[in-house]
Amino acid sequence: MNSPSCLTFLTDFGLEDGFVAACHGVAARIAPAARIIDITHLVPPGDVRRGAAVLAQTVPAMPPAVHVAVVDPGVGTNRRAIAIQAGDSILVGPDNGLLSWASNTLGGASRAVLLTNDALWNHPVSPTFHGRDIFMPVAAHLMTGASLAEAGTEIGVNDLVRLATPTSRMLDGEAEGEVLSVDRFGNVQLSIPSAAADELGIAMGASMIIRCNRRELTAPYLETFGAAAPGELIAFTDSAGLISLAVSSGNAAETLSLPPGARVRIAAGLPA
Amino acid sequence: MNSPSCLTFLTDFGLEDGFVAACHGVAARIAPAARIIDITHLVPPGDVRRGAAVLAQTVPAMPPAVHVAVVDPGVGTNRRAIAIQAGDSILVGPDNGLLSWASNTLGGASRAVLLTNDALWNHPVSPTFHGRDIFMPVAAHLMTGASLAEAGTEIGVNDLVRLATPTSRMLDGEAEGEVLSVDRFGNVQLSIPSAAADELGIAMGASMIIRCNRRELTAPYLETFGAAAPGELIAFTDSAGLISLAVSSGNAAETLSLPPGARVRIAAGLPA
Amino acid sequence: MNSPSCLTFLTDFGLEDGFVAACHGVAARIAPAARIIDITHLVPPGDVRRGAAVLAQTVPAMPPAVHVAVVDPGVGTNRRAIAIQAGDSILVGPDNGLLSWASNTLGGASRAVLLTNDALWNHPVSPTFHGRDIFMPVAAHLMTGASLAEAGTEIGVNDLVRLATPTSRMLDGEAEGEVLSVDRFGNVQLSIPSAAADELGIAMGASMIIRCNRRELTAPYLETFGAAAPGELIAFTDSAGLISLAVSSGNAAETLSLPPGARVRIAAGLPA
Repeated sequence: MNSPSCLTFLTDFGLEDGFVAACHGVAARIAPAARIIDITHLVPPGDVRRGAAVLAQTVPAMPPAVHVAVVDPGVGTNRRAIAIQAGDSILVGPDNGLLSWASNTLGGASRAVLLTNDALWNHPVSPTFHGRDIFMPVAAHLMTGASLAEAGTEIGVNDLVRLATPTSRMLDGEAEGEVLSVDRFGNVQLSIPSAAADELGIAMGASMIIRCNRRELTAPYLETFGAAAPGELIAFTDSAGLISLAVSSGNAAETLSLPPGARVRIAAGLPA
Repeated sequence: MNSPSCLTFLTDFGLEDGFVAACHGVAARIAPAARIIDITHLVPPGDVRRGAAVLAQTVPAMPPAVHVAVVDPGVGTNRRAIAIQAGDSILVGPDNGLLSWASNTLGGASRAVLLTNDALWNHPVSPTFHGRDIFMPVAAHLMTGASLAEAGTEIGVNDLVRLATPTSRMLDGEAEGEVLSVDRFGNVQLSIPSAAADELGIAMGASMIIRCNRRELTAPYLETFGAAAPGELIAFTDSAGLISLAVSSGNAAETLSLPPGARVRIAAGLPA
Repeated sequence: MNSPSCLTFLTDFGLEDGFVAACHGVAARIAPAARIIDITHLVPPGDVRRGAAVLAQTVPAMPPAVHVAVVDPGVGTNRRAIAIQAGDSILVGPDNGLLSWASNTLGGASRAVLLTNDALWNHPVSPTFHGRDIFMPVAAHLMTGASLAEAGTEIGVNDLVRLATPTSRMLDGEAEGEVLSVDRFGNVQLSIPSAAADELGIAMGASMIIRCNRRELTAPYLETFGAAAPGELIAFTDSAGLISLAVSSGNAAETLSLPPGARVRIAAGLPA
């Protein structure tokens, strides 16, 4: 197993306050040589599902790492603090499902511990800022050679809180899924993998039927939105391997009224 | 005295332009090995008080550092450029009070210099961008071993511009303070330390009376907002040790119309 | 020639998603020791001209670097992927003009290659995410010693796509230019260099006539906006050496209705 070469950090802390920096500071005191890559700190406050989606889609690009994620509406309650070994990486955060999708992406949880060893924490521990006082200092100690076992009591990986995996299923001549996330460009990412398009016989360049909000739309299934005319609706396979909808030079999520969670079905239209 | 192990950076430059990066570039040329931790660059333009509050609340989490802060509506005028020794750290920025609260937090100013040695600056110096041309290059030189005395002329620490410390006082059965800052979550931080709650006999779990905007509200004084029902107003001690108000899953600053500077009084309600 | 000592990164990816971090992760896998300076990721989506302006104005502050820039509405189409040697630095990105102004600032393109060597890429390559899969991995390999020639086929530098240089010309007693960019503070940067003010005989402290939107305004030409009264319109030479307009404690772009591209002329008013 390779040892982690960097520390990543995802939160809903925002960028206006000093909260993210305070965590960086705590890490710098414990692990001065550790490189930190900020994933995002603009997860909408308390949106565990959105945090889980961004984390899961970003970790595959990372080297073996300690991934710290804090979207934690239950901070200070009896929700558990955990670290999970998944592949060559370790995930650290609250046990509220935030880490579950990334854990799958990294190859599945092989071990997990409750963060019970307060010798690795930052004291005094604020009841409302476990990012600074528990998650980040534990992660920094893991970067400097502490073992998972030193962080706390081992628990069964089947005992971890998991978010329901976004549904996607094949129906008769259709694939059904939901809007997983909407990115800065307004592109709508569906929970339908590109393999479903193959299975439905939708070739690159062919037409795809999209059923959502009681409407039926048609869009070409293209390699990239760069090939589309401005304002044109297209379907493509995004950088995470999922079917996505875009409006060229526009905002598909707004145009189609498709927020995260909305149901969408796709089917084959006319061949290429 | 420990030598600074990192450089921190707080400004009102925003993130849309290349201003922050230009300063990082100047630092990288002078001190290629210096680690920079960005505190925030989203201080509202020219809001010295807000910059001072975020800086003061973030520096305690940092290792010994050179802290550069630039919220500088008087750039290019005769306001002075300074560096202050406080504890094991050095603060660098304009002498407009921005550094004064952080200086207190770090143990008080023990020495100060005017930044008069232009051999440490970036030339030509833009009259409107001292962050790039004076503050950051001086800080980078301090990171690479330059002494405070090399940066310029020593001045008396009593001569530094200071912001008025946010007021907080004990009245008859009440503590009075003001809104110090509002964070991303809409949590309202008061200038009242948690010790005041102790002094007023408000135990954890007991009820607190909050008087503001000619209203009297009641809120439980809890360890954490995670324990509250959605929409419930609570009081808690925040991660800086100050009494704060939150609306669970909501925005207390908006709900209570409490911007920074607003007066608030607290008193004991019913016991726990 | 000095070798690049850091990698810079400018995009329109935004900060809400994990896109920027995915690129950092790819770089960390290839070049773990390379320092990355983020210039900005808030270029408005697809705004090549804005990206070009911010890049060109920021690179002069950087040490010799590999500059990666991705504002790439044509991703996945037949637009070319390129690397350009300019001075001691290398620019990497799409061949859509984004790099052209920075190339000029750095001393002009001396060599250019098409990024055709897929041995340096991240596989599988997403048709919509060349930042992660082509530009950043190529740049990271350049940081670890790969030569420009290894990145792909050499092309003529005259063959590169260039953005029209923002126009600025001397008329009879006037200089004419356009709004090049508007920064966070609402300051309006013109494409008119400060030398034009000298040529027009407008001394520091003298009055400048500004003609735009069929209006004629007068503003003092000052060293810095710190010297102006709140609400006062002033002209100054900004940190890039260009004539700029500001409203002290206000927003000049909004007050004057001057978006990027708007035409502006300046002339001498009353002497100081």
